[in-house]
Amino acid sequence: MQPDEVAQVLAAVRARRPLVHNITNYVVMDFTANALLALGASPVMAHAVEEVEEMAALAGALVINIGTLSTTWIDAMFRAARVARKLGKPVILDPVGAGATRLRTDTARRLLEERLVTLVRGNASEIRALAGLSAQTRGVDATDDANDARVAATQMACDFEVIASLTGVVDWVTDGKRSCAIANGHALMARVTGTGCVASAISGACCAVETDGLKAAAAALAIWGLAGELAARENPHPGTYRTLLIDGLAEITADDIRSQTRFD
Amino acid sequence: MQPDEVAQVLAAVRARRPLVHNITNYVVMDFTANALLALGASPVMAHAVEEVEEMAALAGALVINIGTLSTTWIDAMFRAARVARKLGKPVILDPVGAGATRLRTDTARRLLEERLVTLVRGNASEIRALAGLSAQTRGVDATDDANDARVAATQMACDFEVIASLTGVVDWVTDGKRSCAIANGHALMARVTGTGCVASAISGACCAVETDGLKAAAAALAIWGLAGELAARENPHPGTYRTLLIDGLAEITADDIRSQTRFD
Amino acid sequence: MQPDEVAQVLAAVRARRPLVHNITNYVVMDFTANALLALGASPVMAHAVEEVEEMAALAGALVINIGTLSTTWIDAMFRAARVARKLGKPVILDPVGAGATRLRTDTARRLLEERLVTLVRGNASEIRALAGLSAQTRGVDATDDANDARVAATQMACDFEVIASLTGVVDWVTDGKRSCAIANGHALMARVTGTGCVASAISGACCAVETDGLKAAAAALAIWGLAGELAARENPHPGTYRTLLIDGLAEITADDIRSQTRFD
Repeated sequence: MQPDEVAQVLAAVRARRPLVHNITNYVVMDFTANALLALGASPVMAHAVEEVEEMAALAGALVINIGTLSTTWIDAMFRAARVARKLGKPVILDPVGAGATRLRTDTARRLLEERLVTLVRGNASEIRALAGLSAQTRGVDATDDANDARVAATQMACDFEVIASLTGVVDWVTDGKRSCAIANGHALMARVTGTGCVASAISGACCAVETDGLKAAAAALAIWGLAGELAARENPHPGTYRTLLIDGLAEITADDIRSQTRFD
Repeated sequence: MQPDEVAQVLAAVRARRPLVHNITNYVVMDFTANALLALGASPVMAHAVEEVEEMAALAGALVINIGTLSTTWIDAMFRAARVARKLGKPVILDPVGAGATRLRTDTARRLLEERLVTLVRGNASEIRALAGLSAQTRGVDATDDANDARVAATQMACDFEVIASLTGVVDWVTDGKRSCAIANGHALMARVTGTGCVASAISGACCAVETDGLKAAAAALAIWGLAGELAARENPHPGTYRTLLIDGLAEITADDIRSQTRFD
Repeated sequence: MQPDEVAQVLAAVRARRPLVHNITNYVVMDFTANALLALGASPVMAHAVEEVEEMAALAGALVINIGTLSTTWIDAMFRAARVARKLGKPVILDPVGAGATRLRTDTARRLLEERLVTLVRGNASEIRALAGLSAQTRGVDATDDANDARVAATQMACDFEVIASLTGVVDWVTDGKRSCAIANGHALMARVTGTGCVASAISGACCAVETDGLKAAAAALAIWGLAGELAARENPHPGTYRTLLIDGLAEITADDIRSQTRFD
């Protein structure tokens, strides 16, 4: 994976403005929509069982985020994912809080077991919980260190034929055979709610324009990490930082990517 | 329509602080509430079928936005609108994504056909879709050019006895006989999610204090467009711009309006 | 109550990072989560009846906010509160708009009557309405002056064995016997949606680390009021002020608290 490939993915998002259909949690809808718009994609949020299939068919990617679940939304998630998969469109799963409650763990696992997912983006606790390993989840924040989560991510990639996208201090993506570590990002990102959710939404935008899922996954995390670094230049407090994260997605250039992307 | 009339509408909103009842989409609730507060109005969000009728009776205007529909919310929209209309209160409809899915198109059309709406604020795709003309809708963003949408807006105004408020590069409002074009606004507004939804909410606040619906509609779009111009003074990126849009609503003065309103 | 005690509560929140489970309204979820994160706590939002009991058991405090009610959410609120109380965890109630509609008044009163609440944080209209006194509620904003609301707060504290936390120009907390007035805060806070809701969420974080509920309640309001003062230093407009409020929670120091807390 080369920085130039990241720049190409970003250029494709900005040129093609993919429609990204989000069925996501209430907390991050505004932040997610503004992040996708700033990136250059076109967001839509729709969750009613009566319309999700139509919307999924219109979109270039579907992003399912289980951060504030309820049973009717779960139904909508499955309906939308089935249509998207049938039409060959990427489906991104953000298993927020998997491991914390059975509803979350079970919903995420069922989506994986039905092979409705093409990419899972989660933190160490969530990835471990979904791989069936014991995890110390504390609400929706990761508490495990990321090292052995890579084993879980690889297992998940193989078991469910997905790209596993594991975020932490150093991010790591794998399709079970190939892998790539991305060292971009900033500690302040953990002080803003929804930065993981946005990573998943950007992964959707990238998968909509790049058929190599591993490349799209790595590009998404590099872009978001770089935006996080740009936003941190003046060492802001978290409220201001949240605003600057959106700015960072709009202002990031191919030169920024070529000079600052850090793959391991 | 004169700029002085816009200044009078804004002054009336700030003096009377109308309560604006919003049944709106999840994505823009925060942005909408803060925009109404900054403008000088008093926002309330309520959607439960058990309470929407009481809330609509308390409010000075009702704003219905179909951006994240579900069947129980549709029921609440109709209940609230019937009470508001019975009590002679303005009902604003924002048909977000009409044309994109049947649920949205049908819900918006049913509200219009039951004569539950006094003002519709939409983009070219949405207005064309509701007028029954073919529209190229792409998710929730307009893809048609605005010119022939004016024909659709006029038809809608006549067919459903509403004010049609069509936003785009140049905005245009009509009651079917009279019309007014408003050239204020800034291209950056399209880079922030919910700027159309806020235009609808501000239309509600203006209709609550000004009985001439056409004047209220034009004033709302001029005020919001001017706030968008004030916010763009330093050419910000979209994250910062979103914050400055709210600031613009609070800082806009009668002098700004008199010197910078551009009616065609 | 001494400023040093406030500083100790803040230090405990930052050191222990309590998980605060919010069942709150859609409008303020983002603002609330970011406020809790900036303060140093760990927010989680969960409302599905299938998972609220598990989540309440994991959390250090439960915050129930009735700002956008619906019947399924009410069920979840009661389930979560029963578990939290059984486990001896603090339950904070924010009765947004109590007095405006029966659904809100009745839901809040039932929670109190079942003794599921340990702290109520509301404005004068809401506290009066819940105490059964006549109140002039106008949507979700208080219209009564705060003076006789203290009588209502005291009555509520005694009747329902709760801490009553009454916010206004000067805040006032009581357990029915002891009381404390807090004069921190800034008029701009009323120009941002959800500042009352955040006061309740911060009260939850403080109650999670401080067993003396009155002390926790007073500390929460002092901290939030001081953040509001820090944020107002440059006399910002409301959009920018909302961002700076979050910054204020992150940057506030023990020295700020010791030098600027104003108890009456």
